[in-house]
This record gives sequence, C-alpha cells and structure tokens, in this order.
Amino acid sequence: MLNMIDMAQLQFSEVVQAAARIKGVAHRTPVLTSRTADRLTGAQLFFKCENFQRSGAFKFRGAYNALSKFTDAQRRAGVLTYSSGNHAQAIALSASLLGMAAAIIMPHDAPALKVAATKGYGAEVIVYDRYTENREEIGRRLAQQRGMTLIPPYDHPDVICGQGTAVMELIDEVGQLDALLVCLGGGGLLAGSALAAAALSPGCRIIGVEPEAGNDGQQSLRSGAVVHIAVPDTIADGAMVTHLGAHNFAVIERAVDDIVTVSDAQLVAAMQFFAERMKMMVEPTGCLGAAAALNGVVPVEGKRVGIVVSGGNVDLARFARLVA
Amino acid sequence: MLNMIDMAQLQFSEVVQAAARIKGVAHRTPVLTSRTADRLTGAQLFFKCENFQRSGAFKFRGAYNALSKFTDAQRRAGVLTYSSGNHAQAIALSASLLGMAAAIIMPHDAPALKVAATKGYGAEVIVYDRYTENREEIGRRLAQQRGMTLIPPYDHPDVICGQGTAVMELIDEVGQLDALLVCLGGGGLLAGSALAAAALSPGCRIIGVEPEAGNDGQQSLRSGAVVHIAVPDTIADGAMVTHLGAHNFAVIERAVDDIVTVSDAQLVAAMQFFAERMKMMVEPTGCLGAAAALNGVVPVEGKRVGIVVSGGNVDLARFARLVA
Repeated sequence: MLNMIDMAQLQFSEVVQAAARIKGVAHRTPVLTSRTADRLTGAQLFFKCENFQRSGAFKFRGAYNALSKFTDAQRRAGVLTYSSGNHAQAIALSASLLGMAAAIIMPHDAPALKVAATKGYGAEVIVYDRYTENREEIGRRLAQQRGMTLIPPYDHPDVICGQGTAVMELIDEVGQLDALLVCLGGGGLLAGSALAAAALSPGCRIIGVEPEAGNDGQQSLRSGAVVHIAVPDTIADGAMVTHLGAHNFAVIERAVDDIVTVSDAQLVAAMQFFAERMKMMVEPTGCLGAAAALNGVVPVEGKRVGIVVSGGNVDLARFARLVA
Repeated sequence: MLNMIDMAQLQFSEVVQAAARIKGVAHRTPVLTSRTADRLTGAQLFFKCENFQRSGAFKFRGAYNALSKFTDAQRRAGVLTYSSGNHAQAIALSASLLGMAAAIIMPHDAPALKVAATKGYGAEVIVYDRYTENREEIGRRLAQQRGMTLIPPYDHPDVICGQGTAVMELIDEVGQLDALLVCLGGGGLLAGSALAAAALSPGCRIIGVEPEAGNDGQQSLRSGAVVHIAVPDTIADGAMVTHLGAHNFAVIERAVDDIVTVSDAQLVAAMQFFAERMKMMVEPTGCLGAAAALNGVVPVEGKRVGIVVSGGNVDLARFARLVA
C-alpha cells in the first residue's frame, strides 16, 4: 500500500501507462451525442459510452491494468476482490484473459445478471451479507489464507489510473471540455477521470455525481475528510458504498471541483431518455452524470460537457420494470 | 422516374456523392464488436449501429440525401411520403432541417413511438389502413393535389444511394469483408449496401435477410421478377412490405448473392442478445442480419462479417414485452 505522500503524487503519466497496457484488450468505446439532449440542456453533451466496454462497464480498464502488473508469483496465486458487481466481472474477465485464478466476494443481494456473468468468466464467487458483514475484513482474511493478491474495487492506484483512460480517450476524441460529469461510488472513476481531465483539458470543471441517498462523497469533499455512512438505499447499485477510498479521496480533494446529488426518480428518467432517444441500455449508476445535466443540477448551458456513462449491466427484467 | 436502363446504371459514384451531401448532418455511427458473438459464431462480426443514427435508423441517410437535391421550387412545395415508421421520421426530420413542409401517410397500426416522433419533427401525419388501402395510390393523389414531391421509402435512386453510405463507412472503418448481412424490407438498404460493398470489398458475399413470413425478396431473386405477397405477419414492422421496389430489384438482382429468412422467435433472441450482451436497443427489423448469423442461417465461421443494425425505434413497453 502507498502512504499519504505517495497518494498525493498519483500522476497523469500513470494513466498514460495504463492506456498502453489496456490497448487492444479494452474497447475504445464510442462517444455518442444526442441533438435532443443538447436541445433540452442548451449544452453540447458528449457521452463516453462505457456501457459498451468489455464486461459492460468501465471497471475492466482498472482491473486489467492492475492485473497486468502482477509478478509471475502473483499470477500463480491469483487475484481476490470484493465487489457489488461490475468490478467483480471485470476482475473475473481480466483474470481469465491473463490465465490466473480469481475469487470474488459478492453481496448476497447483488444483481443476478452480475453474479451470473462473474461465474461465467470462470471466477469463484463467495457470498456475504452487506448489511452485517465487512467485506474488506473478509477480503483481507482470505487473501492471507490463500496467498492471493487483493485488488479492491476502487481504493488502489492501478485501478484509479486504469479508470482514467476512459476520459483520456474522450478528450482525445472531442477536444477541450468546459465541464465533466462523472458517476461517483467509491471514487475510482472520478479520481482517474480527474487526473486525465486536469492534465488534458486544463480549466475543465470536474464534478462527481452521487445518489441523493448516499452523499458521503459530497460530505467528504466539504468537510475535508472521508465521511462514512450506512449502506445507502438507492437504485444505483454500483454506488451503494459507505465511504470513498483513501487513495481516491486524496485525488478527489485536490482535483475535483464539486460533488452533486440526484434522486432515484431522476435516474429513472435518465434511463428512459437513454433507452428511448439514444437506444441504449444504461444501468442506474451509469445515469448519474446524465441525470445531473438533464435536470439542471449542474449548470451546463452553452458549455461543452463530457459525461461518462459508466455501465450497462442491468437485468432485463429490472430494466423493463424501471423504464417501461 | 428513371426508366429500366437508368435503373441498371445506378453506380457507386452516386453513393459517394450522397456521402458528401449527408456529411456533418448524419451521424457517422459506431461499429461495435462483441467477443461473445464472435465466440458463438466462430466469426469476426462487425455491427454497424444505425440504431444510433439520427431519428433512430439508417433511413435518415436516404431521406436527407433525396431532400437535399430538391430545387427551390420543390422545397417551397414540400415533401410527401408514405411509411410504416422509420422513413416517416427520417423525412420529417430532414424536411425540418431543410426548412420545408412534410406530409406523411402512415398505417393506422404503426408503432406509437414512430407516429409520435414523426409529429414531433413537425410533420403532418395522414393515417391509412394498410390492409384495405393502397398507400402508393394515396401518395400519388396527394402529391398531385398539393404539388408536393413524393419521396417513397425505398423505390428511389436517391434513397438507395443515401442508404449505401452506412456500408461505405463500415468498410472504410474495418476493411475488407467476406460477407455482409443486411436487413431486407423494400430493398433500399440492401440495394445501397450492395452498391457500396461490391465497389469497396470485391468478392464480399452480399446477403439480404427477410422475416420468414415475408420472403417476397427471396422469391423475387429466385424467380427473376418482383413477386408480390400479402402484408406479412411479423414482429419486424419495418419489413412488413408486400414487394421490392423496381429500382431496388434492379440493383439486388445484379449485385446480391442470396436472400435468406429468419423466424420471429430468432428475431426476439437476437433482440435479447443485443440488450443483454451489447447493451443496446434494436428494433425487431434491425435484428434480421444478426439473427441470421447467430442462428447459423448463413455460414459465417472463420469469416469477417459486416452486419447492418438498421434501427432502434421500438416502444419501451413493446421492447419490455419482447425481451424481458
């Protein structure tokens, strides 16, 4: 683990190195635009579609980056992680591509599609109760028992830098941005995106978007220290985390301008917009950024705004229930 | 109208001219790939995603190409068309962008989303009964009464050449193809695609895919003359046409290698695949090409195969009913 001084030193150059590692393995996802969204907001919105990423979410970038740095000894022992879903699939797929074993600790109420996909990639799934058990403790114990390397879902420099490659590609494709809206759960995507945007589009306002019910990130940024909350009750299952990671907060504190929140109803409306007007399936967590723009939570009029659509892993039955 | 000799002379150079006309107005849609689809078929599949096109389908290409060639006098009088849906929206949007009036003759049972979107673009909608009335006759009569120019949904050189730009972009992006699978209704997309593929990827096998219930195209290609059938009963509402267009058949006869069919159940399975694995909404008609590949209707193993995903305009309620 890095100490506080190392944390403060996470650099954009490490995002560039991550981009080289994942090149040809991760998809370079498309950037879509919508005249309707632009008309509704008065802005120019650029949606970086990580729902089309391998394993259905941006998480593959960070997972593959981290695992591709393993030593031979680490590869032989395999990787361990805990995740509510998308990071689980990303680690399982990355491990399978790199020929190593993977054990994933998943909450008992994780979406069925995410559990099935994780097993489908050949990983071992270990279930825990997210309301009564501590996954980080279970992870540490199992890692020690099995000699596996723990790659947590967001609180890790290699994960953060891997996630930053999405916004690197976005700015490379569309040019300078006035603002960037990024989904916020544990802070892997937001921290990585902030490293990339600060370097490639200086002056771009970097904004994290959380579910209303779980605004620990907003509280943390305002108070200057990581705030812990109870497991939030939200449809954004990818953002049901209780606190930011330490590495993540170190970057977020210095590089992120603001953190805002949206309601579950606003997330559903954004899901409907994506489905009806942009013909794509976005999971609730992936709608956070778009919901903030479409509902005027962040003023975007007249601006060029990047929005990271983080993932599309939502059971069809649940999707149908939410949008139809 | 062109005579038979003109029909036989439709050239790829006219597709190139269409590409110049729609540049910067139509989206250059992304080409997506899926390792799962490749694993299931043993092929390398390239999906040209026209569901992300403006107005939700490839139809915008042909409509905008045709309307942008209007004389000043034609623009002042406006455009008229008949369409089960996607061409209607495409004409309505193109007319609105070019500042002309549009009147659209739509069947009484057209999907609600398509009717609403057409009206949303400012067009006048005129309803007819597709089982008892002849839309071509209604169109000719109204065009005469109002002095408007009729741009039919597929049987028109400018429409065909506009539709061809999608496959032009596809081959430009991914290179040579061994086979190309294209949805077939009236033949606008297939004829245009054939012009582009024959010129840009010589030797590529060009295959049209129809719904089982409406195999008039297959019968026509095999018999050497346009075969008329009753309105087919299929979930592929964009392919509920009774016969190929004359201009379309002239191109299809000389440039298309085969026409195959898929069942409605295979279309539903392809829709589910697109939603679950590729996170996108594709309307039933847009699934024709993918259904042929995924079900082995066309042998694709070991081949590089282009698949045109023609559109994504499906009511959310209907989508939910079909896939969830």
